Amino acid sequence: MELQKEIDVRLKEIEEIIDGFLPEEKGYNATVIKAMNYSIKSGGKRIRPMLMQETFKLFGGTTFAIEYFMAAIEMIHTYSLVHDDLPCMDNDEYRRGRKTTHAVFGEAMATLAGDALLNYAAETALGAFDSDCDKYLVGKAVRILFNKSGIYGMIGGQTADVESEGMSPDEMTDDLLTYIHKNKTAALIEASMMVGGVLAGADNIQINTLEKIAGNVGMAFQIQDDILDVTGSFEELGKPIGSDEKNQKVTYVSLHGIDKAKADVEALSKEATVLLHTLQGDNPFLEELLLSMVNRRK
Amino acid sequence: MELQKEIDVRLKEIEEIIDGFLPEEKGYNATVIKAMNYSIKSGGKRIRPMLMQETFKLFGGTTFAIEYFMAAIEMIHTYSLVHDDLPCMDNDEYRRGRKTTHAVFGEAMATLAGDALLNYAAETALGAFDSDCDKYLVGKAVRILFNKSGIYGMIGGQTADVESEGMSPDEMTDDLLTYIHKNKTAALIEASMMVGGVLAGADNIQINTLEKIAGNVGMAFQIQDDILDVTGSFEELGKPIGSDEKNQKVTYVSLHGIDKAKADVEALSKEATVLLHTLQGDNPFLEELLLSMVNRRK
Repeated sequence: MELQKEIDVRLKEIEEIIDGFLPEEKGYNATVIKAMNYSIKSGGKRIRPMLMQETFKLFGGTTFAIEYFMAAIEMIHTYSLVHDDLPCMDNDEYRRGRKTTHAVFGEAMATLAGDALLNYAAETALGAFDSDCDKYLVGKAVRILFNKSGIYGMIGGQTADVESEGMSPDEMTDDLLTYIHKNKTAALIEASMMVGGVLAGADNIQINTLEKIAGNVGMAFQIQDDILDVTGSFEELGKPIGSDEKNQKVTYVSLHGIDKAKADVEALSKEATVLLHTLQGDNPFLEELLLSMVNRRK
Repeated sequence: MELQKEIDVRLKEIEEIIDGFLPEEKGYNATVIKAMNYSIKSGGKRIRPMLMQETFKLFGGTTFAIEYFMAAIEMIHTYSLVHDDLPCMDNDEYRRGRKTTHAVFGEAMATLAGDALLNYAAETALGAFDSDCDKYLVGKAVRILFNKSGIYGMIGGQTADVESEGMSPDEMTDDLLTYIHKNKTAALIEASMMVGGVLAGADNIQINTLEKIAGNVGMAFQIQDDILDVTGSFEELGKPIGSDEKNQKVTYVSLHGIDKAKADVEALSKEATVLLHTLQGDNPFLEELLLSMVNRRK
C-alpha cells in the first residue's frame, strides 16, 4: 500500500532524529537512562512527531528546531505510557507486544524513568534555543508543549480517567467522557500540530485552526481506540483486548454504543478534513495520515 | 533568636509568592490539583526559593521573573518528595509530621500529582517570559533549572540512591555516595543559587562560583541529613528516625562514621563561606542562612 510506504520512509527518519537526542547509557545513572531508552525505543507509531513534522512542512518550515520538538513530544508521550502502565495505574504487563518498563526494570525505576523522560523532554525542547530558529518562536512552542501535557491537558485527562474507573454508565456523563478524551489523548495531538505550525511561522489564526483539526482527530483517534479495544485482537494490537472492560472503564463505546461511536469518528474526521482545506499550503500526505489515524485497525 | 525571625519574615513572603502560582482546585481535574496543592502546602522550609531569592538580592536583582522561578523550584522539589515517598520507592507514610500524598490521595493520584508538579514547574518557569526580565536570561535560567533536576542532576542521584539500597558498606564506594549526595540533594541547591544569580545578571564566572558554593552546602546539607537520621527524634524531624537503617541504606555516617561526617560538614561549609566572600555584594543573611542549613538540628 502506497501510504504505508510513505509512512515507513518518514518513520525511519523520525527514528533517527529521536535516537540522536537520547542520552548515553553510562555513569551511575545508567539504569534510569536504559529504562528511558527501552521505553522510547518501543516500535511506537511516532504519530505525534510525524504530525508535527508534516504540519511544519505544510507551512513551509525549514528550521532544525523542529527536530528538538519531535524528540521532546515523543518523550512526553512515552513517559505518560510508562506511568500509565504502573501497577497503581492500569497495571499493564505488555504494551505493543513487549514487556512494559516496570515489568523489566521494576516499579521504582519505571517511576524514575517516567520522571526522567518528562524532565528530559523539557531539556530537549529548550535545546532548540541553540538552533537556527527565532528564539521567540521556540519560547512559544515550548509553552504550548507543556501547557498541553499538563493539568490543563494530558494530565488533566488522565486524572479524570483514573477517577472514572469503576463508574457505571449512569454516573458517567457525556461531558466528562469528552473532557477525558479531549485532554488525555487529543491534547498532545493538538500540541504536535500547533508546535509544527508555530515553528514554521504560522500565524495565530492558523494555529487556532490547527488546534481544532488536531482536537477532532485526537477525539476520533481515542474513540477508535475504544472501538478497537472491543473489536481488535491481541495479535493486531500487541496488548490484551478487553482491558478497558477488565478495568471496569466506561468507554465511548459502552456509553454510546458501537454504531454511534463509529459515526462520530466519521463526522469528526470529515470536519477535520474540511478545516485542513481552509489552510494555505498543500500536504496530501498529512491529510492521508490524519485519515489513517482515525480509520486505523490497530 | 534573630536569624529565625529573619527567616520567618522571608518565609511568609515566599509562601505568598508560591500560593500565587498554585492552580485553582476546580474542574474535572480538581483532584490532581488538590493533591498537588496538598503536597506543596506542607510547611516545608522553602530553603530552595529562599536561597534563590537571597542570591538574587546579593547581585542586586530586581526583576519579577525571580518569583516564577521560586515557585517552580519548590514544585520540582515537592514532586521529587511525592514520588520518593511512594510505596515502590521509600514507602513513607509521614513527612514533616503529616500524611504523605499517596497516604491521603492514593498511589495513582500521587503519581499523577508528582508528574503534574514537574510539568507545572515548567509551565510556571516559562511564564517568566511574560515578565519584565530579559528573555535571554529567562531561557538560560529555565535550562539550568531543568538540567539540575534531570538525569544529570537530581534524578541521576535518585537513581543511584535507589540502586544503592541493600548495598553493604563494602560494596558502596566513596565515589558513588558522593555522586548520590552531589546529585540527589546538591543539584537543586545549585540550581537555586545559579538561577538567582542568572536572573540578577551575574556573569558566568560568578555563576560558576555560586555552583561551587551551593554544591558544598548541598553536600553538607545531605551529610547532615544522614547525621540527623541517626541522632534526631520523631518530634524534631517530623518523620520516623532510623528510616535509612530500616531501608538498609548505606549513608555517609554508616560509611565514614559520625565523627568524620561531622568534620566534613564543617570543612564544606567553611569553604563555601570563603567562596561567598570572594563575590561582590554583601548579604549577611544569605551567609547565616547557608550556615544554618548545615548546622541545622532538624
